[in-house]
Amino acid sequence: MATINENYLKLKAGYLFPEISRRVAAYSKKNSSARMISLGIGDVTQPLAPAVVEAMRRAVEELSDVRTFRGYGPEQGYGFLREAIAGNDYASRGIEIGADEVFVSDGAKCDTANIQEIFSADNVLAVADPVYPVYIDTNVMAGRTGPAAADGRYVGVVYMSCTEENGFLPRPPAKRVDLVYLCSPNNPTGAAAGRDDLRRWVDYARQNKAVILFDAAYEAFITQPEIPHSIYEIEGSRDVAIEFRSFSKTAGFTGVRCGFCVVPRNLKAYTGDGAPVELNGLWSRRHTTKFNGASYISQAAAAAVYSPEGKRQTTGIIAKYMANAAFMRRSLEELGYTTHGGVNAPYIWMKTPAGQTSWGFFDRLLQKAQVITTPGCGFGPAGEGYIRLTAFGAAEDVKEAMERFAGI
Amino acid sequence: MATINENYLKLKAGYLFPEISRRVAAYSKKNSSARMISLGIGDVTQPLAPAVVEAMRRAVEELSDVRTFRGYGPEQGYGFLREAIAGNDYASRGIEIGADEVFVSDGAKCDTANIQEIFSADNVLAVADPVYPVYIDTNVMAGRTGPAAADGRYVGVVYMSCTEENGFLPRPPAKRVDLVYLCSPNNPTGAAAGRDDLRRWVDYARQNKAVILFDAAYEAFITQPEIPHSIYEIEGSRDVAIEFRSFSKTAGFTGVRCGFCVVPRNLKAYTGDGAPVELNGLWSRRHTTKFNGASYISQAAAAAVYSPEGKRQTTGIIAKYMANAAFMRRSLEELGYTTHGGVNAPYIWMKTPAGQTSWGFFDRLLQKAQVITTPGCGFGPAGEGYIRLTAFGAAEDVKEAMERFAGI
Repeated sequence: MATINENYLKLKAGYLFPEISRRVAAYSKKNSSARMISLGIGDVTQPLAPAVVEAMRRAVEELSDVRTFRGYGPEQGYGFLREAIAGNDYASRGIEIGADEVFVSDGAKCDTANIQEIFSADNVLAVADPVYPVYIDTNVMAGRTGPAAADGRYVGVVYMSCTEENGFLPRPPAKRVDLVYLCSPNNPTGAAAGRDDLRRWVDYARQNKAVILFDAAYEAFITQPEIPHSIYEIEGSRDVAIEFRSFSKTAGFTGVRCGFCVVPRNLKAYTGDGAPVELNGLWSRRHTTKFNGASYISQAAAAAVYSPEGKRQTTGIIAKYMANAAFMRRSLEELGYTTHGGVNAPYIWMKTPAGQTSWGFFDRLLQKAQVITTPGCGFGPAGEGYIRLTAFGAAEDVKEAMERFAGI
Repeated sequence: MATINENYLKLKAGYLFPEISRRVAAYSKKNSSARMISLGIGDVTQPLAPAVVEAMRRAVEELSDVRTFRGYGPEQGYGFLREAIAGNDYASRGIEIGADEVFVSDGAKCDTANIQEIFSADNVLAVADPVYPVYIDTNVMAGRTGPAAADGRYVGVVYMSCTEENGFLPRPPAKRVDLVYLCSPNNPTGAAAGRDDLRRWVDYARQNKAVILFDAAYEAFITQPEIPHSIYEIEGSRDVAIEFRSFSKTAGFTGVRCGFCVVPRNLKAYTGDGAPVELNGLWSRRHTTKFNGASYISQAAAAAVYSPEGKRQTTGIIAKYMANAAFMRRSLEELGYTTHGGVNAPYIWMKTPAGQTSWGFFDRLLQKAQVITTPGCGFGPAGEGYIRLTAFGAAEDVKEAMERFAGI
C-alpha cells in the first residue's frame, strides 16, 4: 500500500490569496462597473528591458540553427552567467565569490524552498513573523515541524516577531536555533537590515554553528547607501550563510524564471557525530540530481541584465517602481496613516487605523475605494493590524489609488 | 549546530559521465588529431522546429510590450498549454484526462525527481536494473533506502533485472512493493512495454494499492502501432498511475525546459491508518509551494508543438533520429553484434562481444574507432556486458561511426 507523506496534512490551506480573490470576486459581482486597482500582488507590470529582449531574440535564433543550437546546459548554470553574477553582484562590491559557488536556478522561490532538503529533519528552525510562507511550508512538508497550533504557528519552530518596537528587524533569539531564514529587504514589511543587524546574526551563527538562509531577492530596490546588498558584506559570513537572489523583481523576470543562490565553499554543516561537511558539494548533488538547468533563453536574458545597457535600463525600471513607493508613502502619511518600508523595498507595510483588523481594513478599502491590498495577518499572527501595499503598479493607477484612499 | 541530511552520504559519486569524460580527455590528449564521434550522450542535436521558433519569437515580443507583458503565470502551467496537452496527447487517443490533472513543469527529470516527496519514507520502492539514476538517487536522498551494498544496489529497494530473457521488460515482483518506477520506451535499453506488459502492472498496482510512476518521456519515438503511448490506454490505470512526459526529446527542448506530469483525480494513496488521500491535491500543494511555473517562453513554445505545423515538423525531426537508429541497428547486426531497442526508442542497447566488459568495450571503441558510447554497467549491475548508443547524432556522423565500427 502506497502511503503519503503525512506532513502535508499539517499544512494549513493556502488561505490568503484565494480568500482575497473570493472577496474581490464577490464585490465585483455586485458592483460590475467598479474599476479595481490592485496594490496587492507582488508581481511586476513593466515590460522587459530592451537589452534583455534583444538577448532573448538572439538566443531564440541560436536555437533555430543547427550550427548554434544548444541542448542540455550545465545543471548549475552556464559559465557565462555564473561569471557575470560573481563579477557584477560580488566582485564589484569587494566580495570574493567564485563562479563555482553560484548555482543558477529558475527562481528564488524554488531555491529557498529546496535548500532545506540538504539539512536533517532535526534542525531547529527560526523564521520571522510575518514571513514569506514558502520558508515555513516547505519545512513543514519535510517534517521539520510539529502540527499547527491554534494561532497558525507550527510547534517546534522559533518565530521571531517583527514589530514597530524592533523596527521589524528581529534579533537573534535567546534559544539556540540551527537554521535561520532572513529576508532583507523584507517581504512583506519592507524593512532592510543594516550592517549591525547582520553582524549580530553572523556572530550568532558562528557561535552556534547555525546556518543563515539569506533571501536578498529585493536587494536591487535598496536606495540607502548604508544598507548592505549582500550578507557577504559582513566579515565571517562566508562560513555561515547561503544567499538567494532573483531576476524576478530586479529585471521583471517573474514570467521568464531565473534566479540563483550562492553556497560558499567553506560553509559547513555537521553530521550527527559532529563531522563537518561542505554544503557546496551537498547542494551541488541536490541541484544536479533534481534539476536540469534553467532555460537557455532565460540564462541568456539574465546575462544581458549585467550589460551596460541592461544595467541602465533595469535600474530605470526599478526607479519607476520606487518613485511609486515614495509617492505612496508621502500620500498615506499626509492622510495620517503610519507606514513602514517602501524606502529600500517595493513593499509598504501600513498600519491599519486604530481598532481595525487587517481583513476589516482590507474590506473597507475594497468597498470604499475599490483598491485591493494584502491583509498583513496572512503572513503570520504578528502581521495582524497591517496591510501590505506593493509599488509595482503603473504610476497612473498608483496616483488614482492614493486619491481614492483620501476619500474613504 | 546545523546538521546535514545524512542520506546524502549514502549516495555513490556521480561516477559514470565524469569517468567517460576523463577517459575521453586522456585519449584526446595523446591523440590530438583524432576526430571523436559521440554516440554517448542522450541529448538532441537538431534545432527547434520553425513553428516553435516562431511561437518563441512572438512570446519574446509580448514580454517586451507593456500591453502584452506577462509576469507570474499559474504554477501548474497556463491553461492554453494544459488544454493542448489534454486534447492532443490524451483525448485524441480516447483517454479522458482533464486539464486540471496536467501539471506543467520545467522537465521530466525534475518531476520524476520531485514526485517521491509526496510519499512517506516507508514505501517499498521497485526500480528496473539498469535504470535512469534519478529515480533511485532522489529516493536515497529522501531516506527511502538503506546504504549501498557492494554491488551498488541500495538496501531495501527491489531491483528488477532487465535481461535478454525477459526482453528487458520486468514483470511485477513476487514481493509486495508500494511505489514502482516504469520507463517505457526505456532509457537505457530502448525496450517498449506492450499492452499486456502494462496490464500486468496495472493489475498488480490495483491489487496491492501500489502507485506506478510511469515515465513516458520517449513516447514520441514509438513506431510500432501496437505499443501504447500512455499508461492510461490501459483500463483501470487512472486509479494507480502518474505519468511523466517531456518536450525535451519530443521537440528538442533539452535547453528550453518544459515537461509535464498527469496526476488523475481519482488516484489515491493512504495514511498510515489506511485513510485514502487524493494525490492530485497533494501534488498540487507541492508544485505550487516549491515551484513557480515554467518560463512563459517555454510554455508558448510547447503549445506550438501541438499546432499542425509543429506536429508535422517535430515528427519529421524524430523520423530523422529514428532513421539513424534503424541504420545503426542494421549496420551493427551486419557486423555480427547483437542489438536491442532502437525501434520505439532513440536508444540502442548493444551486447558487448563475448568476454568483454562494458568498460573494456567502451575503451576499445574509444581507442580503435574514436567513437564515444555509454557503458551499460553505469546504469546498474544488470547493464554489465552492454553499451548504450544514442541515435541523436547528425546522419553523417552516424554513418561514419558505423564505418569505424567495421574497422575495429
